[in-house]
Parts: sequence; C-alpha cells; structure tokens
Amino acid sequence: MSGTFGTLFKVTSFGESHSKGIGVITYGCPPGISISKADIQPQLNRRRPGQNRLTTARNEPDQVNILSGIENGLTLGTPVALFFTNRDAKPDDYKNIEHIPRPSHADYTYYKKYGIRSVSGGGRASARETIARVGAGAIAEKYLSEAYGVEIVAWVSSVGNINACNLPVNSISRSHVDKTIVRSGDPKSADNMINEIEKARKAKDSIGGIISCVCRNVPAGLGEPVFDKAEALLAHAMLSIPAAKGFEIGSGFASARMRGSEHNDRFVKKGDHLGTLTNNSGGIQGGISNGEPILFSVGFKPTPTIGRIQETVDFNGNNVSLAAKGRHDPCIVPRAVPIVEAMAALVIADLALRQEAGRSIIQ
Amino acid sequence: MSGTFGTLFKVTSFGESHSKGIGVITYGCPPGISISKADIQPQLNRRRPGQNRLTTARNEPDQVNILSGIENGLTLGTPVALFFTNRDAKPDDYKNIEHIPRPSHADYTYYKKYGIRSVSGGGRASARETIARVGAGAIAEKYLSEAYGVEIVAWVSSVGNINACNLPVNSISRSHVDKTIVRSGDPKSADNMINEIEKARKAKDSIGGIISCVCRNVPAGLGEPVFDKAEALLAHAMLSIPAAKGFEIGSGFASARMRGSEHNDRFVKKGDHLGTLTNNSGGIQGGISNGEPILFSVGFKPTPTIGRIQETVDFNGNNVSLAAKGRHDPCIVPRAVPIVEAMAALVIADLALRQEAGRSIIQ
Amino acid sequence: MSGTFGTLFKVTSFGESHSKGIGVITYGCPPGISISKADIQPQLNRRRPGQNRLTTARNEPDQVNILSGIENGLTLGTPVALFFTNRDAKPDDYKNIEHIPRPSHADYTYYKKYGIRSVSGGGRASARETIARVGAGAIAEKYLSEAYGVEIVAWVSSVGNINACNLPVNSISRSHVDKTIVRSGDPKSADNMINEIEKARKAKDSIGGIISCVCRNVPAGLGEPVFDKAEALLAHAMLSIPAAKGFEIGSGFASARMRGSEHNDRFVKKGDHLGTLTNNSGGIQGGISNGEPILFSVGFKPTPTIGRIQETVDFNGNNVSLAAKGRHDPCIVPRAVPIVEAMAALVIADLALRQEAGRSIIQ
Amino acid sequence: MSGTFGTLFKVTSFGESHSKGIGVITYGCPPGISISKADIQPQLNRRRPGQNRLTTARNEPDQVNILSGIENGLTLGTPVALFFTNRDAKPDDYKNIEHIPRPSHADYTYYKKYGIRSVSGGGRASARETIARVGAGAIAEKYLSEAYGVEIVAWVSSVGNINACNLPVNSISRSHVDKTIVRSGDPKSADNMINEIEKARKAKDSIGGIISCVCRNVPAGLGEPVFDKAEALLAHAMLSIPAAKGFEIGSGFASARMRGSEHNDRFVKKGDHLGTLTNNSGGIQGGISNGEPILFSVGFKPTPTIGRIQETVDFNGNNVSLAAKGRHDPCIVPRAVPIVEAMAALVIADLALRQEAGRSIIQ
Repeated sequence: MSGTFGTLFKVTSFGESHSKGIGVITYGCPPGISISKADIQPQLNRRRPGQNRLTTARNEPDQVNILSGIENGLTLGTPVALFFTNRDAKPDDYKNIEHIPRPSHADYTYYKKYGIRSVSGGGRASARETIARVGAGAIAEKYLSEAYGVEIVAWVSSVGNINACNLPVNSISRSHVDKTIVRSGDPKSADNMINEIEKARKAKDSIGGIISCVCRNVPAGLGEPVFDKAEALLAHAMLSIPAAKGFEIGSGFASARMRGSEHNDRFVKKGDHLGTLTNNSGGIQGGISNGEPILFSVGFKPTPTIGRIQETVDFNGNNVSLAAKGRHDPCIVPRAVPIVEAMAALVIADLALRQEAGRSIIQ
Repeated sequence: MSGTFGTLFKVTSFGESHSKGIGVITYGCPPGISISKADIQPQLNRRRPGQNRLTTARNEPDQVNILSGIENGLTLGTPVALFFTNRDAKPDDYKNIEHIPRPSHADYTYYKKYGIRSVSGGGRASARETIARVGAGAIAEKYLSEAYGVEIVAWVSSVGNINACNLPVNSISRSHVDKTIVRSGDPKSADNMINEIEKARKAKDSIGGIISCVCRNVPAGLGEPVFDKAEALLAHAMLSIPAAKGFEIGSGFASARMRGSEHNDRFVKKGDHLGTLTNNSGGIQGGISNGEPILFSVGFKPTPTIGRIQETVDFNGNNVSLAAKGRHDPCIVPRAVPIVEAMAALVIADLALRQEAGRSIIQ
Repeated sequence: MSGTFGTLFKVTSFGESHSKGIGVITYGCPPGISISKADIQPQLNRRRPGQNRLTTARNEPDQVNILSGIENGLTLGTPVALFFTNRDAKPDDYKNIEHIPRPSHADYTYYKKYGIRSVSGGGRASARETIARVGAGAIAEKYLSEAYGVEIVAWVSSVGNINACNLPVNSISRSHVDKTIVRSGDPKSADNMINEIEKARKAKDSIGGIISCVCRNVPAGLGEPVFDKAEALLAHAMLSIPAAKGFEIGSGFASARMRGSEHNDRFVKKGDHLGTLTNNSGGIQGGISNGEPILFSVGFKPTPTIGRIQETVDFNGNNVSLAAKGRHDPCIVPRAVPIVEAMAALVIADLALRQEAGRSIIQ
Repeated sequence: MSGTFGTLFKVTSFGESHSKGIGVITYGCPPGISISKADIQPQLNRRRPGQNRLTTARNEPDQVNILSGIENGLTLGTPVALFFTNRDAKPDDYKNIEHIPRPSHADYTYYKKYGIRSVSGGGRASARETIARVGAGAIAEKYLSEAYGVEIVAWVSSVGNINACNLPVNSISRSHVDKTIVRSGDPKSADNMINEIEKARKAKDSIGGIISCVCRNVPAGLGEPVFDKAEALLAHAMLSIPAAKGFEIGSGFASARMRGSEHNDRFVKKGDHLGTLTNNSGGIQGGISNGEPILFSVGFKPTPTIGRIQETVDFNGNNVSLAAKGRHDPCIVPRAVPIVEAMAALVIADLALRQEAGRSIIQ
C-alpha cells in the first residue's frame, strides 16, 4: 500500500470511505507560505459530491480541518496535516455486494491482494480518497503561485462523443471553466455534454470523458531524467487517479501519425529567452520543462458502479444479477477537474524543489 | 537527476552517449536466480543499432559485461552491475550543433536545467541510455519467469497511419513479432509499415508509431494503491522512455467514449478462480492486477533529429538553418519494442516483491 | 523536514506541541493483524507526562484515536492513522523566550533552518512529538509478535553516575522493568537513581541517563547491507529521538579496547541451528541479525530546559539571564523507555518485511 | 540488499571482493563542480591496503576510473560513476572456510539471509566494499568545499587502551593527522598505538579503536527533523561502516552522567551571528546544525578475521579449530579514517542539498 507521492514535496494520505475520515499530510512545503482555509476550500467545493445535478447524492460538506504545520497563517516548514471527516457514509448500501465483486471495480483485486474485505468493498478504491489529493494540491498550488506565478487550469474536453472546441489555452481560467456545470470551458458544447450525461443517468448507466490541463508560467528546467522526467511523473500522477485510463503529453498519440518535420517545435526568440513556435512538445523536451505551457490530457472510463442490472458471478463463482445501490456519479469527469489540477500541482511543486536543490552553484 | 527506478527491485543507471560507457545496477533481485549473458544478450540485440536497414548506422556491438552480483551462474542477492562500453561515438557529428539547440530535442532544456552543455548536446537524453533499461529488464524478466511464469511480449501496432491488425494477444510470442523487421507481429501490414519508414528516410525525415504490449501470467494482487497503482507505475515507466508521448491501459482513451454497461468486464468462473469475460480493464482493476493479461499501448513521436533543413534559432536567438548530421533512426519504434518490454518487466518485478513483503501472515 | 521513517513498514508523523494534535500514519502493516486500542494505549501510558513524581506536570490523557486502516479489529492492509489531541498546551509559558534561543534547545537552529519561529520555539523539537513514535511502534510490535514472537524490552541502565546491575537480558520483561518508577529493572539501584533525579529537580536542574534494550526472537537474516545494516538503522532510529547523544550495539565502545580473540563470538550448536556462546555482536553480524538477542544502548543528555538561571544571549546577541518556565522532566530517561522500544520495533518490522520480499524463491 | 544511501546526494554501490571490481554511482552532485582524479585519488590512497606495515598485504593499486558524468573536468549534473578493478583477489585463501562460518564475521548471516554462499564467504561484507564510499565521499567533499568551504578531518583517537590527547579540533588538518602511520594526530601517543597494533599482529590477533571526526564550516540549518536529524543520519552512515559498534555526537555517552546546567551550551555573540561557548552539542541542536564544528566519534571492534586458532563449529554444527588464512589488518582504524570522512561528507552534502531545496522563498 503506497500512500505517499513525491520526493521533496511529498504527500501522504490515509482513510477509507467508511473510516472516521480522510486525511493528508504534506511534507516539504517551504516555510513562510501564506496558507489559510480560503486557499484550500474552493477546490474542495469543486470536487464535492452533491454540488449540482450531475453528481452523486452523497452529501459531504468536506470542510477542511488544518491539524498542524501552519501558525498565524504561515507555513512553518513542518508537515501540514489536513483532515476531512466522513459523515454521510451508508454501509448498508454495500450489504448486497458483500459477496459479489462489482465488475470493473476494485472489490475482487483488493481481496486478492489483502486477503481481507473492507465494509465498502474496495478499501481505499473510492472516489472519496481523492479529497486528500485536492487538499494537498491546493497547498502545492499556493506555493507555486507565490514562488513562480504558476497557473494550472483543467477542463472537460470530451464527454462520450461530444468534444469541447477552440479552448484558449493561453488564457483559460477556472472561472471560465466553471461557467457550465460540466466544466467544458466551451459553452457551445456544454449543453450537448450535459445532455449526454443525463441520458446515461436515465439509463442507470455511466459515461466516460477526457480532461485536458494547461500549466502556465512553469519555469524551464523542471524534470529529473532519466526516470523522473516531467511527463513521466505527470503520467504516474494522472494514472493514479481512480478511473483514469490514458495519458497524453502535448501532441500525444496523434504524434505517432506524424512526420518529424511536421512535429518538431521550431525555436524562436521570445523576448530575452527562447521559446517555440508550436507546442507539440506540450512544454516538455527531453523530460524537462522548456518554459512553454505544459499541456496534457487524461482519459477516464465510465464509472463502473451502475444501477443497471449486470450479469456476473459472486466470489464463489455462482451466477448472479447485480444492480448496484451505492450512490455514484453518472460521469466522473466534471468533479475530476480539480483532482487533475491538484495532481499536476503536486508534480510541479516537487520538481521545482528538486531543481532548487542543486542550483546554488549554477547561478 | 533521477537515475533510479523502483522501490524493491530497483535499477540505477549512468552514462552519457559520449562517456566511457553506459551502466546499470539492479538491486533487490532475489538470490538464487539463474542468470547468464545468454539471458541478457538477446534483448540487447533486438535493441542494437545497425541491426537492419530500418535503424541508425551507429554500430555498437553492445555486448553485456557482468561486473558483480552473480557467481557460478546464480544471483547472490547483492547488486548486479552491467556495463556497456561506448565504442562508436562520433563527437564531430555534434560540432555543428554546438551553438544550436535542436528543435524538440533536449539540448535547450538540459542547458536550462544544468547550466552546462555536454559534448553530445542533451547529456543523457540519448537513445543510447536505453541499453541500461534493456539490460536490467532482462534480469527482471528472468526473475518473473522463474517465480511466476510471466511472459511479456510487445509489438509495433502502428507506424504513421498503418495499423497492425488481429494480433493474438493470448499467444503472441517474440519470435512471431520478429518475423518482420518492423516487429509488427502482423505480416500483412508489415510491408506497408516498412514502406512508410523508407519513405520517411528518403525524405530525410522521421515518422512516429505505437507499441502495444501484453504481460501474461501476472498473478492477481500486484499494485500499490493509492499512488503506486500498477497502471500508474507502468505509465511512469513508459513515459520515461525517450520520445514516448502517450500511454493507455486496456481500453484507454477509447473508454472515454463508452458507457459503463458496455465497458465493465463481467466476472466469470475460470477454473478455481474468477476471471473476466472481456478485458477493457487491461488486467488491472483499482490499481491492482486481477490475473488477466495486462495490456497497454505507448505512443511515440517521430525522432526529432532529422536530416531535412529546419529553420530555427541558435542559443543567442539568431535565425539559422539546421540540417542534423548525427546518425539516427527514421522510426524509433521497431527498436523500442524490447525497451517497452524491459520497463514492463521492471514494474512488475518491483510490484511482485512489494506484494511478497507482507503476505506471510495472509497465507 | 523528514517526517517519514522506514522503507516498507513506514511511519509518517505530524504535529507541533501547540497545534491541534499529533498524528502518525503507519504504512505497510500487513493485513489481518489484530489491533485494538488495548494494544496501543499501554505504551502510551508509560510515555505519558504526569504519570508519576519523576515527570513533567504537563497533563495530557494521550488517548489514542484510530482514524483509519482497521475494521472489525483487524488491519486492512491500508494506512493506519492515529491521532492524539493536544489539550494542555500553555503558549504563555513560552512568551518569555520569544526572543531568546534556549541553550542546547532547538530554538536557534529551527529559526536558522526555516527563517520563521513557531509559538513553542522549536517547532517539532518537542518531547510531545514522540507520542507518534510510541503509537506507531505499538502497531509494529503487534505485527512482530504475531508473525515471529518478537519481544522487545528496554530499561534505564544508568542515571547520572548510578548504574543498574545484573539485568537478566534473556528473560527481563516490561512488568519487571516497571516495578520501579525509574524503570531501571534493578530494584537495588532504583532508589539511588530516583534520589539522583530528585536532587536534580530540587536544584532546578536536570540529569542524563542511559537506556538499554533487548529484542528477543528476532529471526536470523534481517538487515540490508551495505548501507541499511540492522545496526545502522537502529542507530538512525535511536539518534532521531530527542536528547539522544550516543548509540552502541553489543559490546559497543568497549569493543575498541578489546582484542579480536577476546571479542569474537564463537559459534556453537543450539538445537537445529547455530548460535553463539557470547554475544558481543549484539545479535548482528555483517549488518544482519544472527538469531541471538539484539542488544543495544542509547545515551541521553540531560534535558536542556531547566529552571536554573542561565547566562546566555537573545537572538540579537544581547546578554540575558534566562530561567525557563516551561514544564519539563528533570530526567527524560524513564519516559523514554517505551520510545526506545517503539523505534526498535519500527526498525525490525521494516527489516522483516524487506526480508520477506525476496525469499519466495529461496524457500 | 540496500546499496543506496542519501536522498538527493545519493550514492549507489556494487561489487563483491571477488567480482570484476567495485563501483559507485553518485547522483545529485550539482553541475559545474570541478572534479578530476586528483580530487579522488588521495583519499583512496589513504584507504588503500598495503600502504604501510600496519595494513593487510592485499595489494590493490585502487586507481579510480571515472566512467561517466564528468566532461572537461566539470560535473554535468548527471550521475558520476567510478569503478575500481579487483586485481589481487585470492579465492584460494577462502577454501578452508567454505564450510565454516568465521566467528563474528558475516559468513553465517549472509547465508541465513540469502540462502546462498559467495566465494568470499560474506558477499559484500568485505572491507573492499568501502572503496566505493571513499570514492563517492571525495566527490561530496569537493562539492562541500566549493559551495561552503566545509573541511572534514578524522583521526584515530584511541587504539586499545591508548588514547590520543589534546587534539586541536579547530585547526587539525589531514596532513597533520598523516604525520604518523597510525593517524592519531598526536605524535606523543602514536608510538604507543603502533606498538599496541604490532603486539596484536605478532599474537596473530587484532585490536579495536576509536575514530573521532570534526566537520568545520558546516552552515547552520542542515538536518531534517524529526527522523532525519543530522546526528541520526551521521549515526546511520557510521554504523554502516564494517566493524563499527558505537557512535557519539558531541558529549555523547558522557552527557548521560552530566547535569543540564553543566551540559548546556551557552549562546554568545560571534561576529554577526550567534555561536556557543562550549560545544557539548557537537554542532547539532534539535537535529539541525548550528554553525559550530560538528564533532563525533565512532567505535570500531577488532577485526574478526584473525590468524590465531579459534574453537568454533562448521555449518553443520561440528566442532572445528579455525585459523584464518585471508590477509587482514591487525587494526582497521588507521585505514578507516578516510572512510569516516567520506561518510560524513555524504551526509552533509545530502543535507545541504535538502536545505537548498526549500529556501528560495525564505531569502
């Protein structure tokens, strides 16, 4: 069980969906950063269940408790611990699946791994776990914002077959993204996306989607080749989010169909430094940020917990018909937007500290 | 600079393309595993430059030297060190790019990171670095084969717009894959792929492609949620390979267009355990292997070093026309097949040891 | 700030003496271990302030809260989080030292490190931090007890110039140690030790001491050369305890005065395995446990916070006379006994899991 | 098997005493540091066997090979690999102990751990392994010297019952220490120490000793509480050296006999910063360096391999008389002086980088 992510800006999380709560410890946040609940709560609210008609009915206020590491509104340089109480857990919802591993959920694999079953089936394989990521990510973002002016904005770039179009990646903001409840950043396609989600819900089904993300003002030089390249850590971070199935940096899989002459990002002079004319690299070359916006996408599968009857077998191999009772989102991606942003912030903050470590001599 | 990958089965690599050689240390390989050069050399040969007309002319024999950790053909449990001498380095090829960062290569970012330039421009951002991965991966594979019977086979599933079809993932073998020099595993499409690569070469250009991989006989229970999920470590490993731009597990990005009822893998009884009827999960659920084959794909961009003239700027921002002289592959993917297999083996071996660690009580 | 210890059995702690509380997360405890508050609270009570006349008057009930990782009395294999609320913090006690770094305390160095000062002066450099160690150690001990029958017992082997004598290391138990409030395990010397402590207290002063520890039934084979030798990890663990100044394994510094022929532990047959006649090795040879009892000692300095007036300077370098008002122990060692036991348990549990990891092939 | 030490300035070593050689990789050394063989060889020569009549007759030139990471005399920021060929291995010396675990050596424990025996008995438990430490330590020292002016000097403070006296810790240099072959730094006691060693050798026996070390100009602020305190990492590093049995920081075990009023280091103004009048703290308070010299001692046991006949048992438990034939030092401490310096350099370099990581905001 690895509950720790990062090398210097390191987060450690704990908690099951039916334990007393979910918590997260952030190590390595530099001292003297101004952090209050007001820096953390907004992203938690964007992740919160029950925020609008597209989300699960599980109702958790998800108010952040700061347990340590901050005094008089400033980080001490010591571990910052956040805790989120579980209030609306309904263990009874899980009674009917006590002996049935839900298809494409973690019930079966957790049992094979640990030899024991938790009340909620899949132990920590619950969307509730992601509250810890969002809490810690908000701290990372505040550090990155104060130290470098980094801005991180994610949006829903597709739901099912509906795609968002024409997003202004150099200027898009969270408030722009939040103009529609589906968080597509593209009002034109939003209604179609919402419609797609509503259709899935009515069918007691779920639907997948894609989230794209831009990180602006990331300084050049971040990334630790050859194994901890910036895109490798981003891929690690994103694929650790529940339901994530794919990751692309910059041109991604489309690059596989291109010629080098078409794909290469030509250098140009931008003020006192070099930049690139195009950004197929997604802001990363050779595993190291080049100063251009970092651009990536994450594909999410449809939520496996659905109300429709599924033919499957129980733990003993007997045929059963399963209709899940647990509360769930018909489409996870609108709520996953702040999770993607949080994980991106954790990766960049960690790489920033790692880069700071050795540069005293250089400069 | 992170040259270390893994938690228990841990590899550490070193060496630039113009240093005395490339080396790799493998920690944590259990004692008593039978390993000789014959277990390592075949994969090195598949990665070797100059092996056929599709690859760069750089000619390196790439014979493995075992420096430590093995006596009388058995691992001692101590670190196994492998070393590969560099013979055919041609620093003169790099003279004309001393002051010009190659577009979409690592010259610019290495300079921004380290404040110093290596002879070869991009320091360790060289395809030559991957020999270390293949050497260490062969050791991991031998362990996985002896301990669990794991089989790992990758192939080129696309080059440019040409796709391989109808691959038998439950039985495909390396010798089958190697029937064509493009390693597509699909003789029908191979000629078209080779043709696509030859066209790129003639145009002094390069072309991208996709590699797919299957890992069979991986026991259920491997993966360390919530941050070191099996697919997250695979994504990390794959995106750390030079030129990799995207990663998909199982249904990948296609899942984003699906409904849950369509995507969920229904459980069925398979002998004395449970399996799934379909495998959209790609063998991993909730971050933990479920016993089905692990399936994933990696997208690679076209090699950035091309002979065609590119308009760009030098480090001072002056306009220049650049025609690279370094030897390079017109398409990296046929040689990247053993690299993908190696990185998969490193991830699975590490997760296997992590799972072994705590199971004494369970069983 | 490193708040994490261990590789597989890993603990992460947080909290200042004046934050909402102190917490600790234990990762990697195998699933299925029976753990309840009753396994944890006794050691916390032995560490608790205010337990008898030898200790500080700070009064904390130190009741453990289990926040996650345990259901129905069994570990799930997921992170186990413990939390201890701070109740009796008295920030006013620290007002007079706001501008004065206490001699031999951490006030000055924390300020130099972080550039910021916490309410309590030294941030996490508080004896209160050790409650996290004791909580996590109790979990490690339960695992070691169930898996291997390991027994860990520490005692106060000296206070000032008074030494405990003739301890039966093969049979000494915690209840035997607790027969006197000074925890010397030697009733004869206990009165003299207590007397020494009372004299220090009356002089508004403090006094140092030594704790010795035996770990019985540790299986042979634990320890990870060449850098994570068993004694190296024990030394690391022990010197991380506040006020610890020295560590010895087995014969320790006395070995420096001995000849090899005198010091070597001759092997003898003990039932179906080999043992040693003497135990100068302290149960560890070449960094690996040999099956004999592990024996070590830890030297502790006198508490730096004393009521006697000390001539020193403030942060600006002005001469001042300082008489500390904070509540403190005249001698830390009786309360440090469970801390030493806890840290030993964490080291051994971690090494046990690391050894389990690779042994499937061997056996 | 842990062959890695450090978090950011990280070393990884490999090699048995009878493999092709011993190697070490240094990660995280900042780029642009001037390093040549001339920076590394002198410390290797001080560690080299056969350097004078006090040492083993095994004759190894121990010339350093730099395999990677340095171009034109400057570090690239990439891994620096060093390799030392084994030339004078004599496997025949080990034939008579094939079935006999040498008392207090690692033969028995390596076998219990790995289930396999290396030619040389104890695998990596050979003094030869320490050449890797000295090589990597020289790189760390060069970095510390260039970045901070750090000076690290160790000496033999006792052999058997003979103690060195009156060492000027504020000014002692390596050339001063090397004035006698016993490296006591105190010419008066040197003859007695040498005499003690010669007596042990003549008796086909060995003798222990103590090494003390001072690290000057270490900046205040290094150390990562609560688990990676500076003294905890030093203790870890020192106890990982073969034959080390004890570690003391500053006043060490003597502090256990002192009162707080006697032990506390009173602060005084020293130029523009604070210092302490005494240095019982050994330069570290609360786990963090305070700017005063770091002072510590390490106790070493007598070499276990002795020529005298020892009564013991073989692996099957049969009584045998053993007279070791392997070449060995009668007293390890003179050659261990550069090893202690190297390990201190590795710890301080790592802590320096960790401290640099987060300070951009502070200053």
